[in-house]
Amino acid sequence: MFDETDQLSVNALRALSIDMIERAGSGHPGLPLDAAPMAYVLYSRHLRVDPQDPEWINRDRFVLSAGHGSALLYSMLHLSGFATSLADLKQFRQLHSKTPGHPERGIVAGVDATTGPLGQGLAMAVGMAMAETHLAAQFNTPQQQVIDHFTYVMCGDGDLMEGISHEAASLAGNLKLNKLIVLYDSNDVSLDGATARTFSDDAQQRFAGYHWDYQKVAAGNDLAAIDAAITAAKATAAPSLIEIKTTIGYGAPKQGTHLVHGAPLGQVDLAATKRNLGWQEAPFTVPAAVQQRFQTQVQQRGHQAHQQWQADLATYQQTQPALAAQLHQALTQELPVDWQADLPQYTLGAGEAGRQTSQKVIQALAAKIPSFWGGAADLASSNKTDIAASGSFSATTRQARNLNFGVREFAEAAAMNGIALHGGTHVFGGTFFVFSDYMRGAIRLAALQHLPVTYIFTHDSLAVGEDGPTHEPVEQLMSLRAMPGISVIRPADPNEAVAAWRLAMTTNDRPTVLVLTRQQLAVLQGSLSQPDGVSRGGYVIAPQQHGTAEGILIASGSEVALAIEAQQRLRKFGHDVKVVSMPCFDRFMQQPVAYREKVLPRQIRRRVSLELGTTLGWERFVGLDGLSLGIESFGASGPAAEVLADYGFTADAVVAAYQKLW
Amino acid sequence: MFDETDQLSVNALRALSIDMIERAGSGHPGLPLDAAPMAYVLYSRHLRVDPQDPEWINRDRFVLSAGHGSALLYSMLHLSGFATSLADLKQFRQLHSKTPGHPERGIVAGVDATTGPLGQGLAMAVGMAMAETHLAAQFNTPQQQVIDHFTYVMCGDGDLMEGISHEAASLAGNLKLNKLIVLYDSNDVSLDGATARTFSDDAQQRFAGYHWDYQKVAAGNDLAAIDAAITAAKATAAPSLIEIKTTIGYGAPKQGTHLVHGAPLGQVDLAATKRNLGWQEAPFTVPAAVQQRFQTQVQQRGHQAHQQWQADLATYQQTQPALAAQLHQALTQELPVDWQADLPQYTLGAGEAGRQTSQKVIQALAAKIPSFWGGAADLASSNKTDIAASGSFSATTRQARNLNFGVREFAEAAAMNGIALHGGTHVFGGTFFVFSDYMRGAIRLAALQHLPVTYIFTHDSLAVGEDGPTHEPVEQLMSLRAMPGISVIRPADPNEAVAAWRLAMTTNDRPTVLVLTRQQLAVLQGSLSQPDGVSRGGYVIAPQQHGTAEGILIASGSEVALAIEAQQRLRKFGHDVKVVSMPCFDRFMQQPVAYREKVLPRQIRRRVSLELGTTLGWERFVGLDGLSLGIESFGASGPAAEVLADYGFTADAVVAAYQKLW
Repeated sequence: MFDETDQLSVNALRALSIDMIERAGSGHPGLPLDAAPMAYVLYSRHLRVDPQDPEWINRDRFVLSAGHGSALLYSMLHLSGFATSLADLKQFRQLHSKTPGHPERGIVAGVDATTGPLGQGLAMAVGMAMAETHLAAQFNTPQQQVIDHFTYVMCGDGDLMEGISHEAASLAGNLKLNKLIVLYDSNDVSLDGATARTFSDDAQQRFAGYHWDYQKVAAGNDLAAIDAAITAAKATAAPSLIEIKTTIGYGAPKQGTHLVHGAPLGQVDLAATKRNLGWQEAPFTVPAAVQQRFQTQVQQRGHQAHQQWQADLATYQQTQPALAAQLHQALTQELPVDWQADLPQYTLGAGEAGRQTSQKVIQALAAKIPSFWGGAADLASSNKTDIAASGSFSATTRQARNLNFGVREFAEAAAMNGIALHGGTHVFGGTFFVFSDYMRGAIRLAALQHLPVTYIFTHDSLAVGEDGPTHEPVEQLMSLRAMPGISVIRPADPNEAVAAWRLAMTTNDRPTVLVLTRQQLAVLQGSLSQPDGVSRGGYVIAPQQHGTAEGILIASGSEVALAIEAQQRLRKFGHDVKVVSMPCFDRFMQQPVAYREKVLPRQIRRRVSLELGTTLGWERFVGLDGLSLGIESFGASGPAAEVLADYGFTADAVVAAYQKLW
Repeated sequence: MFDETDQLSVNALRALSIDMIERAGSGHPGLPLDAAPMAYVLYSRHLRVDPQDPEWINRDRFVLSAGHGSALLYSMLHLSGFATSLADLKQFRQLHSKTPGHPERGIVAGVDATTGPLGQGLAMAVGMAMAETHLAAQFNTPQQQVIDHFTYVMCGDGDLMEGISHEAASLAGNLKLNKLIVLYDSNDVSLDGATARTFSDDAQQRFAGYHWDYQKVAAGNDLAAIDAAITAAKATAAPSLIEIKTTIGYGAPKQGTHLVHGAPLGQVDLAATKRNLGWQEAPFTVPAAVQQRFQTQVQQRGHQAHQQWQADLATYQQTQPALAAQLHQALTQELPVDWQADLPQYTLGAGEAGRQTSQKVIQALAAKIPSFWGGAADLASSNKTDIAASGSFSATTRQARNLNFGVREFAEAAAMNGIALHGGTHVFGGTFFVFSDYMRGAIRLAALQHLPVTYIFTHDSLAVGEDGPTHEPVEQLMSLRAMPGISVIRPADPNEAVAAWRLAMTTNDRPTVLVLTRQQLAVLQGSLSQPDGVSRGGYVIAPQQHGTAEGILIASGSEVALAIEAQQRLRKFGHDVKVVSMPCFDRFMQQPVAYREKVLPRQIRRRVSLELGTTLGWERFVGLDGLSLGIESFGASGPAAEVLADYGFTADAVVAAYQKLW
């Protein structure tokens, strides 16, 4: 089944990869040299992709979890007829090139996920496989499988050392994601040396514990054995791990050692490697037979599959017009025209916890938007994330829309990324705000990939109370605001919470973080009269009484009501201040200067900020002449009201702080 | 071996726990009711602790990884004669009580680690077991084992779902930490419901994959079986997992369901539970026989062991005076008088990367301080953390001082916490700065527990270059500065880097984060002339030429040199500014107002900050009238110099920014 041209093709991938790395003067030759055979078998015999339409929804997904092996992927994309040109390969790791150091989704056509931070690729793939099986359950009929593809991962020892690999694999096993297939490049070497020094897991036993299918390929260059293993993996009822034993840097003089992991081989070793591989072409040159082979085996095979799918889809559109219309809506991420129809509205006098408002919004959205789904990390009952009208997504109930991620926050966030990368749904996920720390690596990759996922972080401050400092967020709010490319919203009342959800649903280019209370929030007059306040990021929620304000109180979330209370007390002392609600720093900074100046006039310097979190960052709005009331230490265990008073969050304390400004 | 009084003692723990929770009106009865038997067997028959000296260095350690079961631990500490009084139990979860919602190290005597964020307790215990075996190898002689204790963990399903449990268990298996024993309260229920909905791991197979010893106890109330399992576990050559099948909320009407997990039972169910358990005492009342049993089985047994150890230690001090003196120094964390003798010094004209300076410092400290050890997460060769004079700590080389954590950043940081909690060493650990995200949960617990660990985070900015945005920190710096209780230092040159290490070594109440470059940093004149600059947090590194400065440039790390370059150019335009190096926000904020005013005089408002990171937070120093040059998006892959220029980090750009201030 494999001939000499196939072997030559494998070596073409190797040669191109090391040429790229040598030219760039940096990169990782170890993986491309050892994993080229498995990559070749996958792309040439199994992976169903159409280089002419890299975003074909029913393509097989491929995630290079060991993202440092990017040169191999780019070589593959080039030879397979994706947009990556030879010129691009020569620009490897150069500024503004189409071949960055690690695979970047959106920069390189054919890259299904941005990878590099180890372990996350595997977890994103789990999310992709979840999305696939969910969409398949929604849209396939006994006659027609419009969504029916595999998700492949290539990972290394480092990926499997990371904790997220456990969370992801355990979840995938529980969900029986049988169309997830992981090729494990098991080369026993990582950056610092032989993995045995620190890593001696028996992968077979470990993954048996997760109820995965496991196969071992003893020789990483054995194309037929790899092919047979992938073929077998496609037929199992469980996710599959194929452990393929390889020699890192295969062919290089220093093969089998960490010296070939992460730096160019150097001209001498490069030449020796090519000799060892029997490779005789000039740099960046590939024989015509190899080019032809990739054209036939990847490009044409994939394009034909895509054409067949399109023909099937046309039939589907005729036989299942309602489903086809819904599928179209799901894939284009269009919201139904009436998507906001059932959103709750609040009037003065009412009040509820942020998480409760969110719960109502979720029900209203779920009723109108069939592609809306999500869940929590074993905190659905606390985060109020359950869609009451649906069941739990599981191995036997693929259509259900409540995702039970288990106590696995990091994999939750990474799987959400995978779900969003896959396309076809709107996904949300919750946990306690303090545990957003566990997810940070994946939130960052959501932002970097411009993924419109929504995080529901409840229990947003010291008002958590009795659970104490391990469960009380302090620095999380400012720490997330510091991250590029995300929108962080902390609503002050039920109306702001609904508005925040609206923004999340209409934001397509970035993740949205909703920071919600467990405790009651009263409806505020100012949020009623200014429905666009949240979308502006910050707005005057309670103006001064006369003319120009003497000072400004600025707050977010539950502290806005406290600011308004303090405003009223300050009047008794003759201080006429205005109150600004600032639910979202990032959106406020995107407003025109004139608007920002109107809200926070430059000449008014008596400013006090109030927030149950670190003050660092609030100086953006209070400057050198104002001051910030916040939390500069960790919280404490006790009834919420006592904790808040103990930390100085009372109207009297705000009044006293304001009066210090003289 | 167990009689009726033992059974009564188990129920006493249960009754006290649910009384506490009921009185507090919040808490988690599920675990105390089901795990009281295993806790009782452990404390009464195995755990060697002396309630009269809870900090006895050779005590067995106990970590309640499932920290929400705190009521059980507090009940145990009370009955065992620790400082926790009955009055304390009645103050459960109240402000400033000695019985906070989750176990807090330093607040509650007898608590060996602050727990609550799931999974981290297990990983801290791995660190404790590492410290124990390292100290044992250093100090024990064939005749005398001065360090010789077990580390016990009690964990639940949630702990084992968390990714960090994989990292920690895999590391412990590789290191053959045979004195680590984990009691797994396997009750098949978590907060949201039956774990089977999302968690179906076979723990035996999984932990076989890590080369752990595994035992199963079929009935959680079977004291003899639990006792036998612990006895067997103590004799194995591998770490041990004892899976103990229990019924969550045992005895309660709703036992076996998630309804008993995390809220008080309520008076009716409380009464029913006590009836079911045959418990007839008044609330918070314990029969004398039970009190007597705890006194004998825990307090006296432990105190005698402690006395015996003290006698042995006295002999040791006579027979091994040198070792005994070194042990004393290690346990008191005293630094040798000459600890700074070999630290490198730098003169003008020299220069090197931050990580290289750190590497030299590590060698100098290691030579003088035998208790100094550390490592990296498979990046020792990049972070430059290896102690050249020592080997790798492993199952066969326990004395060695280089810790190979593997690609396991989170477990690394948590294990560092465990090592620091254990006492007897000074520990450091490194990774790429961008991957500090993976550790955040553990860094937070280091801060909360006041642990003096040192993080070595290299590759500190977009100057990483070719590896691209997944490897280029942007928001990490400000995000860590936002965390309470830690010191974050980003040195500008080799002298500042040495000073930063000095601070880390002399700081005993908090973790220190060292943020270091991969690229070269020239020695700066101002750091030479002001050796106490770093300890002040910020200082004038390059003053204005005449009288009062017109403006101020403020920078940290590699951008200080750029600020000085811009200062010189600005002179040509007639702008006489001073440059402030601000390596450490937190230390600067702790300086007296007068000092801060001297460095940043209030009336000078023309201020520009420069830092290769998010600007949010720099307004603390530049205010509303200044501006900040920073990075507001993610980085890019390319040669470092090109990337920096592309993001506007040139002296010309600084000059242009400063000139905008008019």
